[in-house]
Amino acid sequence: MKDEDLTGLQRRAAAFFQDLQRRIIAGLEAFDPTTRFRLDRWERPGGGGGDTCVIEGGALLEKGGVNFSEVHGELPADFAAKLPGTGTGFWAAGVSLVLHPQNPYVPTVHANFRMIRQGDKAWFGGGADLTPYYPFEEDARHFHRTLKAACDAHHPDFYPRFKAQCDDYFYLPHRKEARGLGGIFYDHLTGDAHGMDLEQVFAFAQTAGNAFLPAYAPIVQRRQGLDFGERERGWQAIRRGRYVEFNLMYDKGTLFGLRTSGRIESILMSLPPIVRYVYDHQPDGPEAKLLEALVPRDWAAE
Amino acid sequence: MKDEDLTGLQRRAAAFFQDLQRRIIAGLEAFDPTTRFRLDRWERPGGGGGDTCVIEGGALLEKGGVNFSEVHGELPADFAAKLPGTGTGFWAAGVSLVLHPQNPYVPTVHANFRMIRQGDKAWFGGGADLTPYYPFEEDARHFHRTLKAACDAHHPDFYPRFKAQCDDYFYLPHRKEARGLGGIFYDHLTGDAHGMDLEQVFAFAQTAGNAFLPAYAPIVQRRQGLDFGERERGWQAIRRGRYVEFNLMYDKGTLFGLRTSGRIESILMSLPPIVRYVYDHQPDGPEAKLLEALVPRDWAAE
Repeated sequence: MKDEDLTGLQRRAAAFFQDLQRRIIAGLEAFDPTTRFRLDRWERPGGGGGDTCVIEGGALLEKGGVNFSEVHGELPADFAAKLPGTGTGFWAAGVSLVLHPQNPYVPTVHANFRMIRQGDKAWFGGGADLTPYYPFEEDARHFHRTLKAACDAHHPDFYPRFKAQCDDYFYLPHRKEARGLGGIFYDHLTGDAHGMDLEQVFAFAQTAGNAFLPAYAPIVQRRQGLDFGERERGWQAIRRGRYVEFNLMYDKGTLFGLRTSGRIESILMSLPPIVRYVYDHQPDGPEAKLLEALVPRDWAAE
Repeated sequence: MKDEDLTGLQRRAAAFFQDLQRRIIAGLEAFDPTTRFRLDRWERPGGGGGDTCVIEGGALLEKGGVNFSEVHGELPADFAAKLPGTGTGFWAAGVSLVLHPQNPYVPTVHANFRMIRQGDKAWFGGGADLTPYYPFEEDARHFHRTLKAACDAHHPDFYPRFKAQCDDYFYLPHRKEARGLGGIFYDHLTGDAHGMDLEQVFAFAQTAGNAFLPAYAPIVQRRQGLDFGERERGWQAIRRGRYVEFNLMYDKGTLFGLRTSGRIESILMSLPPIVRYVYDHQPDGPEAKLLEALVPRDWAAE
């Protein structure tokens, strides 16, 4: 792709991500009148900045962030060498969200849609994944089917590949345990391996980003009215500890943010509001069912 | 050192660490009748095992662990190459403790004393450091002076060197913030750099280990009766989040444990019982004083 075409694509991708942020926030705020995100606009000293939109203490969302950022500058050389592009100059734009609902029957969800350029190479990455505390098969099927439809509209290989990558990626090796029920995850997607060009990959990234709300919102609607008490809140707090373990130990986005001098509060807004660490906790009853459910399944086909 | 002498030293070091565990637990249990540790004895599939002693929900200690382990086996090759010994065979014994008091005026404390052998090389490592929520200069001075006296009994270089290493090590680079008020930290200590042999280093390791209770106990006695409420508990929960960040992102002991297939619940017992992650929290009043105090000072000399 010629440099001016790539620059144009970067501009359109950034505009799409910023608009996607706005639409997702509007969709979440429509759920209940106490859900009001607040905006923190920040600048990155090395170049660029972002709009961090955070909510804390809402009736639906105990904590959540839907962040847009567009940053550029120089990567540390050792870090740049591990990326597929050339040189240390980089540009990145994307939207990243994590939602931690108050009600333990409503799953935590994460999604990220981004474009990255390093030297003359550029690629897209992203995905969405669901982390329930009490699993409902109906919810897992809906989430996966919605994402599969978005993938299938662009390439038949995408869903099975990105679903498997999601299972592989959101995994805690030290626990030998999946983070949740998966979803899709893709990275370094240039289109080369699928006979697509970067414009076609951008078209897919848009479909995938637009599928987030339709994948998640019906689950919220089904579960947000369920009664819960101290037992469910305690279990939610323990499981949120696993979320912290994953994000601080393995998450690429967290690492990328820290290595590119990102804004620490925007990166770590993904951490849950209240967490309990209990020594050697062994769940039983309905809580034990979650651990049984954390085995990858072909949810979209069931 | 001849192999049979080194083996003998290993046996005596392991016995010392196990006895130190017993004495520290007895010292902590003497504080109040609700402080009763429970013992989990475990075996490591690859060789060795440990005694994990944990307390949860005590009046003094909301959560704490004082663990002994003696393990041996094979290191992953890439990990072994980063250690100072030769080959992949290893043996390690030590005591490791983290105490999270209920009362936010009583500081969290961590200590670790260990001997490691890799091939024909062996070394000692360890230290102790203090992480208050509300800093008292008197406590910091007492803690550092006690550890300095232990160091000074063996080599005049030890305290200034190990104090500086502690400040360097217990530091969150992404926050540009110290974890606490420091203490001492040493690793790969063979004695070579100080004209000492490994037996003399073991003598130091014993003095240092024995100094833990005299360094910490008087601080508990001074602070455990102070009144606290929701405000102090909230601040404690937020600061404990920093403790989690450090342990999951940077702590060598955690990494060593995970890379050597250690027992996950024994490694992560260090995590605090209840943690809050608040977006962009800005303390004021007495809580802001902690951040001012987190600048390395020569506490022992003041």
